[in-house]
Amino acid sequence: MTFSPLDSALLGPLFATDAMRAVFSDRARIAAMLRMEAALARAEARLGLVPDALAPAIAAIGPDAFDLPEIGDQTVLSGVPTIPFVKAVQQKLPKELEPFFHKGATTQDIADTALVLQMRAAFALIARDLDAVLDRFAELAREHRSTPCVGRTYGQHAAPLTFGYKVAVWAVGIAEAAERLPSLCERTLTASLGGPVGTLAGLGDKGPAVAEAFAEELGLAAAPIAWHSLRARMAETGAWLAILMGALAKMATDVAHLASTEVGELAEPFVPGRGGSSAMPHKRNPVSATVILSAHMAAKAHVATLLDAMAAAHERPAGAWHAEWHALPQLFGLASGSLQEARGLSDGLVVKAERMRRNIDATAGLLFADVVAARLAPSLGRERAHRLLEQAAGRVRTSGSSLAEVLRTDPELSRDVPAEILASAFDPTPAVDAAAPWVDRALDEIARIRERLRAVPQP
Amino acid sequence: MTFSPLDSALLGPLFATDAMRAVFSDRARIAAMLRMEAALARAEARLGLVPDALAPAIAAIGPDAFDLPEIGDQTVLSGVPTIPFVKAVQQKLPKELEPFFHKGATTQDIADTALVLQMRAAFALIARDLDAVLDRFAELAREHRSTPCVGRTYGQHAAPLTFGYKVAVWAVGIAEAAERLPSLCERTLTASLGGPVGTLAGLGDKGPAVAEAFAEELGLAAAPIAWHSLRARMAETGAWLAILMGALAKMATDVAHLASTEVGELAEPFVPGRGGSSAMPHKRNPVSATVILSAHMAAKAHVATLLDAMAAAHERPAGAWHAEWHALPQLFGLASGSLQEARGLSDGLVVKAERMRRNIDATAGLLFADVVAARLAPSLGRERAHRLLEQAAGRVRTSGSSLAEVLRTDPELSRDVPAEILASAFDPTPAVDAAAPWVDRALDEIARIRERLRAVPQP
Amino acid sequence: MTFSPLDSALLGPLFATDAMRAVFSDRARIAAMLRMEAALARAEARLGLVPDALAPAIAAIGPDAFDLPEIGDQTVLSGVPTIPFVKAVQQKLPKELEPFFHKGATTQDIADTALVLQMRAAFALIARDLDAVLDRFAELAREHRSTPCVGRTYGQHAAPLTFGYKVAVWAVGIAEAAERLPSLCERTLTASLGGPVGTLAGLGDKGPAVAEAFAEELGLAAAPIAWHSLRARMAETGAWLAILMGALAKMATDVAHLASTEVGELAEPFVPGRGGSSAMPHKRNPVSATVILSAHMAAKAHVATLLDAMAAAHERPAGAWHAEWHALPQLFGLASGSLQEARGLSDGLVVKAERMRRNIDATAGLLFADVVAARLAPSLGRERAHRLLEQAAGRVRTSGSSLAEVLRTDPELSRDVPAEILASAFDPTPAVDAAAPWVDRALDEIARIRERLRAVPQP
Amino acid sequence: MTFSPLDSALLGPLFATDAMRAVFSDRARIAAMLRMEAALARAEARLGLVPDALAPAIAAIGPDAFDLPEIGDQTVLSGVPTIPFVKAVQQKLPKELEPFFHKGATTQDIADTALVLQMRAAFALIARDLDAVLDRFAELAREHRSTPCVGRTYGQHAAPLTFGYKVAVWAVGIAEAAERLPSLCERTLTASLGGPVGTLAGLGDKGPAVAEAFAEELGLAAAPIAWHSLRARMAETGAWLAILMGALAKMATDVAHLASTEVGELAEPFVPGRGGSSAMPHKRNPVSATVILSAHMAAKAHVATLLDAMAAAHERPAGAWHAEWHALPQLFGLASGSLQEARGLSDGLVVKAERMRRNIDATAGLLFADVVAARLAPSLGRERAHRLLEQAAGRVRTSGSSLAEVLRTDPELSRDVPAEILASAFDPTPAVDAAAPWVDRALDEIARIRERLRAVPQP
Repeated sequence: MTFSPLDSALLGPLFATDAMRAVFSDRARIAAMLRMEAALARAEARLGLVPDALAPAIAAIGPDAFDLPEIGDQTVLSGVPTIPFVKAVQQKLPKELEPFFHKGATTQDIADTALVLQMRAAFALIARDLDAVLDRFAELAREHRSTPCVGRTYGQHAAPLTFGYKVAVWAVGIAEAAERLPSLCERTLTASLGGPVGTLAGLGDKGPAVAEAFAEELGLAAAPIAWHSLRARMAETGAWLAILMGALAKMATDVAHLASTEVGELAEPFVPGRGGSSAMPHKRNPVSATVILSAHMAAKAHVATLLDAMAAAHERPAGAWHAEWHALPQLFGLASGSLQEARGLSDGLVVKAERMRRNIDATAGLLFADVVAARLAPSLGRERAHRLLEQAAGRVRTSGSSLAEVLRTDPELSRDVPAEILASAFDPTPAVDAAAPWVDRALDEIARIRERLRAVPQP
Repeated sequence: MTFSPLDSALLGPLFATDAMRAVFSDRARIAAMLRMEAALARAEARLGLVPDALAPAIAAIGPDAFDLPEIGDQTVLSGVPTIPFVKAVQQKLPKELEPFFHKGATTQDIADTALVLQMRAAFALIARDLDAVLDRFAELAREHRSTPCVGRTYGQHAAPLTFGYKVAVWAVGIAEAAERLPSLCERTLTASLGGPVGTLAGLGDKGPAVAEAFAEELGLAAAPIAWHSLRARMAETGAWLAILMGALAKMATDVAHLASTEVGELAEPFVPGRGGSSAMPHKRNPVSATVILSAHMAAKAHVATLLDAMAAAHERPAGAWHAEWHALPQLFGLASGSLQEARGLSDGLVVKAERMRRNIDATAGLLFADVVAARLAPSLGRERAHRLLEQAAGRVRTSGSSLAEVLRTDPELSRDVPAEILASAFDPTPAVDAAAPWVDRALDEIARIRERLRAVPQP
Repeated sequence: MTFSPLDSALLGPLFATDAMRAVFSDRARIAAMLRMEAALARAEARLGLVPDALAPAIAAIGPDAFDLPEIGDQTVLSGVPTIPFVKAVQQKLPKELEPFFHKGATTQDIADTALVLQMRAAFALIARDLDAVLDRFAELAREHRSTPCVGRTYGQHAAPLTFGYKVAVWAVGIAEAAERLPSLCERTLTASLGGPVGTLAGLGDKGPAVAEAFAEELGLAAAPIAWHSLRARMAETGAWLAILMGALAKMATDVAHLASTEVGELAEPFVPGRGGSSAMPHKRNPVSATVILSAHMAAKAHVATLLDAMAAAHERPAGAWHAEWHALPQLFGLASGSLQEARGLSDGLVVKAERMRRNIDATAGLLFADVVAARLAPSLGRERAHRLLEQAAGRVRTSGSSLAEVLRTDPELSRDVPAEILASAFDPTPAVDAAAPWVDRALDEIARIRERLRAVPQP
Repeated sequence: MTFSPLDSALLGPLFATDAMRAVFSDRARIAAMLRMEAALARAEARLGLVPDALAPAIAAIGPDAFDLPEIGDQTVLSGVPTIPFVKAVQQKLPKELEPFFHKGATTQDIADTALVLQMRAAFALIARDLDAVLDRFAELAREHRSTPCVGRTYGQHAAPLTFGYKVAVWAVGIAEAAERLPSLCERTLTASLGGPVGTLAGLGDKGPAVAEAFAEELGLAAAPIAWHSLRARMAETGAWLAILMGALAKMATDVAHLASTEVGELAEPFVPGRGGSSAMPHKRNPVSATVILSAHMAAKAHVATLLDAMAAAHERPAGAWHAEWHALPQLFGLASGSLQEARGLSDGLVVKAERMRRNIDATAGLLFADVVAARLAPSLGRERAHRLLEQAAGRVRTSGSSLAEVLRTDPELSRDVPAEILASAFDPTPAVDAAAPWVDRALDEIARIRERLRAVPQP
């Protein structure tokens, strides 16, 4: 298994994408740290603090030049992998350049900036998947704009709507999360450069200028003041990822239920061999929903860790910063797997309109009880109409007759129910018509947000 | 105690403000539900669906007209307090208006919109407190822009900076949370009106128009589609409140440590009788920090609940929605108490510049080891200089001599250390000068964000 | 609403019992603190440290003698309500006894011991409810020991079992939580008495003897060493309560689904007016399941807070201890409401055996696919048999024929399926017979655990 | 990095032990699944259900015979790695044995029982480390039984105690967690065997007998009823691990603070190169405390996930079970790293008794204020004595004089303070004497619990 299933050969492919795994691999980490140091060298060279030759010399060292287990062994001593990394780079640099390497910076500058570079690559992957998911769900909502379907509250049949409406709700939920991504990137894709205690004192009066140039070199924002111990960026990122997974989990909750045997209105896309069982040959388990729901469950816990880490003592805390490492990369991993499955669902969900129609009729007209009540309210009063329908519903349940029949024939109830009221009350058309404009509004909103998603920066 | 100390006569005043308590009182809840129903009546009257007289009739019923325990008893049956509330209003309305009351709406519309109205009032309180806290901390940062002070990493003395710089970091952390409040309000202060399954089918083709008018009546945004089961608004609000408390907790962590006996650089504002002990007459406990830190600890847990609630089944879930009620109001309560204490701290923090200066000298020059190392790097190489200083630091610790002395007199080390390098290395002035521009940047940022805070809507 | 719905007149009755509310009321808190001080006085009198008259004098002060809001106002200053409480008692005591009051103790001793006394009362309520729930569910399992019913995995029909078996699983889950309660009580119902820093130094060499006598007076355990900053007792209590709610939530998850419209195998007990809707007169929402599920969601978050509070600095922390107050009483409140609803469900759950039987047949024999596969394995090999049934299941889904028919008539498949194998494969009797002994084992286990529950101490 | 730092070559060695990593490796997972299947074959052979040759044939397949990435790819389809594992084993078995393989079992039986076997190995590692930590901390407590030291509450000097007392508190905290391990093992080291829906229907009337034999073969407990969807075992395990880490975090919190520059009473064990900084050559960061504190922060979040997973639908849930995989193994990994560092600390903590003594005197006698107040109480009354000392403490702070001096010379205060009262009040001996018996009690408790720890089963 490995400690995290995301990192396991056996389980990893189920829970995270290969692309996201590559972003957070040990090798990618080393590459990001090298990129950070090279950018620092370029920035400092621009300000005359280090030789121009330093940056190319750093860039010439590839991520494969490092002995990862050796660095791991030394991390046990140093408490942070950046220290053995810095030493290893120093040994690889020409002697005359070595004194200028890492000038003015501290371990956290490397670690945090490298992480931000990884986050940028990760956000780009997420944006791409989000766009695809929204595209397909929008299409599905449009297609089923008028496919009647049961609306359910508290697990009970409530009133009719359309399947396109349901999909539109899912898609708006996902889109509303997506909409926040560009501004999240603006805030969080920020370079970290502060030196030992944040003031870049080792650079004399050139600290702010180097910090600006450094951020520019990497295409990142520059912070007004060092964020070594201001961790809202990480907490906000984590919360956003969990909210995104929550939006996907809302959809997966519905899919799993609609695909359940008794409901049968949906099936996950058919992939040969998918969703089988070692014991039950007939099973087609909702694997995508399972992955999305489990990701959401695991995700929210990591957010608590990131929030916790905000109470960071002084210029660098003993514990709170390290705790983030246990939470943030896994959130990206979980999100990647969740989106991968959402793409699968949005692409190939099997919609059974016929079964939806049958389920509408399954309660012998009770699904339209609120319509009838509303029609009776003007004459009977709202409360009395409501009570009358409550009684009628009870008789439907015990007698097996339909609501229309009960209301027409029950000696007690029928008095108060003019026949013309019943004539059209059990037709789902008004419900379908009422759902349609919301689908249209949703599609507009999704199109607008997909447009905005293009602002997510590329790595 | 009551189940939550926020609601306790004994403990409540310590943990939440009276103003916030009023916003989330049972009475305020009823008032918000009435306000929602009146707005619905006005909106529907504008579209000709209900008589004009309905809204004033609702408005005429005050929140004190309800028997709260009676509603509570019926909530046990209904599972939501809005149902007995609706019944109670129906009984109080003139018979001819009753059939039009609550037209097209469902319980969740009332409950969620009422909550949003309470949130608007709560956000306004928070914005006011945030503005005050930022104002005072900005002032404090300016005042101590050049007050030298120890920078600490991992609990150890690291390098000098200024107390103004530390305060600027706190304030930027709080300001960065504050900056997001206006856009959070835009997204979350959204009316909820969807009827039984979200489509407002009971209003025929006037659903979207009524929804827009309703939102307008209340000064709230209108959603593109019903958000009955799209709960990102609540999760995002909770995450934001927890992040705010995290930013305050960063400050409180530092304050508690700086006010500890051995450090002694700060004291919480002197209030007669505050921070005493039943056993130890000399104690002055950091009560404000205690409240802020405990609020942060409790807050992050509630966020997990709100994230959890996002996996809301279909058109209304059995459990997930109710779970929010256990989390969101408490987050506002905790935030109010946290901000109240932050205001107290920002107003009257006792700063002991003299002690700060003494603490800089407490390590016999080790605080300047990185400065010396940086000066030696060009001649010795970065790595060798670093190692030399590591050795020297060891001797300082065992010998009791100062770092300057060790470097000047140690037979082994002094060879490599030119005297001129030591001359000025132990002067905190460069560290103070390096900190200053960051304070200025921070002050600009805070001023900019305070300006933006004005966009937070008033209730 | 109040900050916590548990404390609300509108919502509290839905979410917590009145009995539990009384245990955690402000008044009960004062009463517990008085009881603690009186016990301390008795213990110290036994060892000759204070006059015998002190304890009766304290006992004579009733909890109603205190001005709660006045104490609340002073709590803002002191940071803990025990300090104004101590002062108020001092003023009420005869002058000659006052110097002896609270001798050697500190605020946390009062607060924690009072809390433990409240916990004892709360545990007794929980034990009583647990016993009732187990009694009724055992009865229900016995009654439906042979009622055939669908087993479901991943939301899909899997294979038949009995409804009694399902109930037995629920009950064992609840019983396994219950089993741990007596030992939890042993560990957690421990007196706290340590004085300022835990050593009871103010009592000279009589510290340990007083601590033992004090615990004895209250019927509590004595700790080997002060637990002021050893908070596992609270964390373990919280985890246990959440696990209990988890066991109830497992049951509620199943109930809500089995009571859903399409499944229809259960209904929550019929209580007139229960589970209605303001808009939909036919609704019968699963209110009990809703309460239990929402309690579980909220509960787990509080556990994180209690775990967090374990990292308590030195002899008393600034924040971590206070954070517990936001979590522990609410967990008891949530558990009380959850158990209340579980009692309701266990008492009156409506079981629809006929519908269960019909659902078994709903998949045209697919529910028995694993039986057929197992019968074919000896001749075909396990893997080939499995694949054959996978293919047959696909044809059942597309053709509408039953599995028996497909296996008998499909030209490709029928070759490998001897007719005698199909003869009895679709009879649920073997599944019913297989379930029965597990129900019996479960009933024995439940009976054994109910016996053990009697060891829970009474307040 | 990998998604979890526990799995990273760069960071893993810092956060988890190699031994624990081996327990949770993919290879160990495969080995545990094979062991499970072989035990099932032996149990079924005992009951005449499968040939005797099956078990040896399974045992002959080593864990290295599997293509892990190939299984990973198929896990994406199946949703659980046990399905491709079962297929792979089937292909490796002799044709005549294949039909009998995995008889009556389901995927979750393999996965859960394999996990339980891994847990047993993990618990044994933890028990060994706990024993070592308790041994060393007991020794340290004994050694410093009479080393005077400051007691601190709310970060403030409170009253004196001994360092041995502090260590005894840490050790009792850890021991109390340890004490629960044997009974936790009893409950959680339970075999899982239920077949498709828990009833082992595929084994006819031999289900319970096979389940018992199977458990016996593995040295595990047998459950009264299938625990496929009763997940308290996992939640309880997770809560226990987090509580253990909480107990260690209490110690690490104290160590980090006592090792801070201003306090200086402790240093982490000296290991060359440990705790350095890339920028600050003089730094000796508390790496062990950092690891322990970050593990605790991350751990508590995972508990929430495990609690969440308890609401498992029916006979196997879609999501909740998979979510556990993201939480439980990481908790073991975090615990291993935490204990590894605790062993390091308990072995080599550098105690600076001299500095402890100096810190006692740092507040000019205020540390003894409660002693003086207690001595004055009989004559002045408790409250007046308290107030007098509060005033005196204020003068000490402003004047720089010692408390003894103030009380002797202050015109206002000295009247009420007889000289003989001051004579011995500032001697720490009574505080030392008061602490000693608690240390002894703690040592007895620890010895008793270490004895009990031997009951933890070996793998």
